[in-house]
Amino acid sequence: MAIEVSNKQVILRDFVQGFPKEPDMYVTSGTVTLTVPEGSSGVLVKNLYLSCDPYMRGRGTATLTPSTLDPVVDSGNQGFKEGDLVWGVTGWEEYSLITTPEVLFKIKHSDDIPLSYYTGLLGMPGMTAYAGFFEVCSPKKGDTVFVSAASGAVGQLVGQFAKLTGCYVVGSAGRKDKVDLLKNKFKFDDAFNYKEEKDLDAALKRYFPEGIDIYFDNVGGKMLDAVLFNMRMHGRIAVCGMISQYNLQQPEGVHNLVQMVVRQIHMVGFLVHDYFQLYPKYLNLIDQLYIFIYYNDNEV
Amino acid sequence: MAIEVSNKQVILRDFVQGFPKEPDMYVTSGTVTLTVPEGSSGVLVKNLYLSCDPYMRGRGTATLTPSTLDPVVDSGNQGFKEGDLVWGVTGWEEYSLITTPEVLFKIKHSDDIPLSYYTGLLGMPGMTAYAGFFEVCSPKKGDTVFVSAASGAVGQLVGQFAKLTGCYVVGSAGRKDKVDLLKNKFKFDDAFNYKEEKDLDAALKRYFPEGIDIYFDNVGGKMLDAVLFNMRMHGRIAVCGMISQYNLQQPEGVHNLVQMVVRQIHMVGFLVHDYFQLYPKYLNLIDQLYIFIYYNDNEV
Repeated sequence: MAIEVSNKQVILRDFVQGFPKEPDMYVTSGTVTLTVPEGSSGVLVKNLYLSCDPYMRGRGTATLTPSTLDPVVDSGNQGFKEGDLVWGVTGWEEYSLITTPEVLFKIKHSDDIPLSYYTGLLGMPGMTAYAGFFEVCSPKKGDTVFVSAASGAVGQLVGQFAKLTGCYVVGSAGRKDKVDLLKNKFKFDDAFNYKEEKDLDAALKRYFPEGIDIYFDNVGGKMLDAVLFNMRMHGRIAVCGMISQYNLQQPEGVHNLVQMVVRQIHMVGFLVHDYFQLYPKYLNLIDQLYIFIYYNDNEV
Repeated sequence: MAIEVSNKQVILRDFVQGFPKEPDMYVTSGTVTLTVPEGSSGVLVKNLYLSCDPYMRGRGTATLTPSTLDPVVDSGNQGFKEGDLVWGVTGWEEYSLITTPEVLFKIKHSDDIPLSYYTGLLGMPGMTAYAGFFEVCSPKKGDTVFVSAASGAVGQLVGQFAKLTGCYVVGSAGRKDKVDLLKNKFKFDDAFNYKEEKDLDAALKRYFPEGIDIYFDNVGGKMLDAVLFNMRMHGRIAVCGMISQYNLQQPEGVHNLVQMVVRQIHMVGFLVHDYFQLYPKYLNLIDQLYIFIYYNDNEV
């Protein structure tokens, strides 16, 4: 007989306007059957770790979709069996039935890697940093790199990948302790608190007197506008997110796009899902670089 | 003895603010020696045809730099000799000493091609359309293509290249006779007058109910903003120019850049100079396509 257990879920009431507030979400408890439905090729997982990622802000209503680490509870899919450890995109709930198992990745656990890393360094944020920096920006030794929201799960890795590539890298963040982390732990060449800069253009000129080759954009808005005036010829902008805009009723205008032509800029918006086929390649890279990388599991 | 002749020039007084007006320019007449200076590897040309191109608006002061067709008068460069017909970027004047002859292209004149075409179809605007459409946008059969300022020297060719590639192509222009040209002569699938559209988003949705794969942007501003909301996933935007912005004191804001991420858009600003090495390839293509192409020498 199918076993039923309770399944706690965090649900969004409605599409969130402005900054998300606690009343926008509620906790509910339903039940879930611990077997996949007859004939389904889905995979039932128990969520061990859930992350709260900026990209979730762009989602509509219903269950939040964080990245996760889970053991398979039951599987109707021949690629997965009970007990497999997997990570992927799931719901903010205790158990999830994944009907598109191509978004799940099996992991081989080793004791020296915290399991929670599969919601960060070894999961979606890590792959985002990897794809956005290496695949979108084609970095080379000596390039100047600017990263906004640089202490976040993605930004902190972009900076370290840039350093390991031989680039000069500067990050921005919005709090002193984050700026300190960037300089002292994440090995950025320099960092600044954008909230303390009256003139972002002047700040960028201070750190990049010769201009920026690569901008890894996590914020959009005013910072993007200032960056456009500081890009070098043939500069590349990877647009990973625009978090400065997500909570605004009316997005800010970006005024300096003419610089796209003047400076022959490539600007590419990307979603990590397009690059998941590179995950094995990414794991190999991290395997080699692991001892050089500082990963802060709690920083967002 | 070196022969001196008069050299009439059109000169910009200063960097132009707002719409260019006649007093912003003046005509002057100096003299020019009809030999290149001793030891120079420059090329002296007599300008036969000069074009007036939108990109000139972005230039600073001093001589205007149109594209041109010229015979060589004297040459200190072994690649060119007296009497060669060349096109390239020169000054708005009767004679120009070109000190960077790598921007000059020799032509073989044939009687069935008007010489003036080397300031258009067979010159800089043609190469711009070719590079921007084929090299930047990677078009394929069935793609939906939108071109703004579509009756211009560049846009009219982009539309025809798109049709010859098997794309569906719609253009916008700002006057009825231009719209008629687009539909009747330049073989666009459809065209509209953007000045008659209250809601650009609605206009684009009318012509592209399934969205836009490729946007060839000549105008920037409000049209770009509306296009961003109508791009298909992995859409490509070639930013050739932003003429709606050149005469504004303060450029308009583009508010919908978040769509870059949501729709994974590639937006590439380009200048034709990066692609001039492809000119022989382009000439070959036009050689094959010539009978299919309608070129309007006067339209801008």
